[in-house]
Amino acid sequence: MNTPTRILGIDPGSRITGFGVIDLVGRQHVYVASGCIKTPPKATLAERIDVLFRHIVEVIDTYQPTVSAIEQVFVNVNPAATLMLGQARGACIAALVHQSLPVHEYTALQVKQAVVGQGKAAKEQVQHMVVQMLALNGTPSADAADALAVCLTHALRNHNLAAQIQQGLSIKGGRFTAR
Amino acid sequence: MNTPTRILGIDPGSRITGFGVIDLVGRQHVYVASGCIKTPPKATLAERIDVLFRHIVEVIDTYQPTVSAIEQVFVNVNPAATLMLGQARGACIAALVHQSLPVHEYTALQVKQAVVGQGKAAKEQVQHMVVQMLALNGTPSADAADALAVCLTHALRNHNLAAQIQQGLSIKGGRFTAR
Repeated sequence: MNTPTRILGIDPGSRITGFGVIDLVGRQHVYVASGCIKTPPKATLAERIDVLFRHIVEVIDTYQPTVSAIEQVFVNVNPAATLMLGQARGACIAALVHQSLPVHEYTALQVKQAVVGQGKAAKEQVQHMVVQMLALNGTPSADAADALAVCLTHALRNHNLAAQIQQGLSIKGGRFTAR
Repeated sequence: MNTPTRILGIDPGSRITGFGVIDLVGRQHVYVASGCIKTPPKATLAERIDVLFRHIVEVIDTYQPTVSAIEQVFVNVNPAATLMLGQARGACIAALVHQSLPVHEYTALQVKQAVVGQGKAAKEQVQHMVVQMLALNGTPSADAADALAVCLTHALRNHNLAAQIQQGLSIKGGRFTAR
């Protein structure tokens, strides 16, 4: 048996960053942890980045994931908001690479397609599917659910890849080719 | 005599990030080091953030600055470029706070006003003034010069503050008031 895969998912935000941790046991997804990192609204940018960086490092130290996945933020119409979100996302990725974790990126569209089956799904549908797929007793907050959905996206996309390879396909230059 | 102040200045960029280090000896500015961190253009975002973060940490370990100053990037008309720049800047600030450095932020306008005396100065004027003020033998690259200009901005603004306090002013709630 392979080493179990433990995925850390991050949904970056300038105010609230969601995180989720799941285990891949065979083809099963097992919930490990999830939560939110909230940055103090009146703090300076450096203080907020400090909080974000330290907490992500703490989550990694606590749960020891083997891989990470982060949502690709969509470019906002508000340039100042885009810059803020970019800064938060840059700090998150800095924490992941600082802890030597491989980083995978998925767009919101890829996450919705993987978890709900279609790219135009509402936030509530994502939340609902996360609860179903991980057999959770309660509903996690929207940001934590999004982070868990990013974990599931990474898990599902890699299952499918593995399955396709088993079915006689190999990958060459990033494309599937028949063996 | 006070502990000497060593300022690390950062001019963040998605491709090239400039850095500069100067010492404040009394009212004199003494050049210590400067350079550029170039990220490989074909690398993934995580790889580029890794390069940026590690090199800033290395610069801090090598030169042991006591304070840092970083240029506030202007919000671009191109949202994707703004996001990229934000991510690089967030990673830079993460490296600074990770190394426990106080972080000060200055806008491009503040830097130009401090170094050249007017906010509409051309890049070449900034470069020229940096060479003059630090009595350099050669001209540093544009990005390194910008980073040194950020150092000088922090130094000059704090000189002026110290001078005004000496002249009988105190600061209350962020404003100068006569003692």
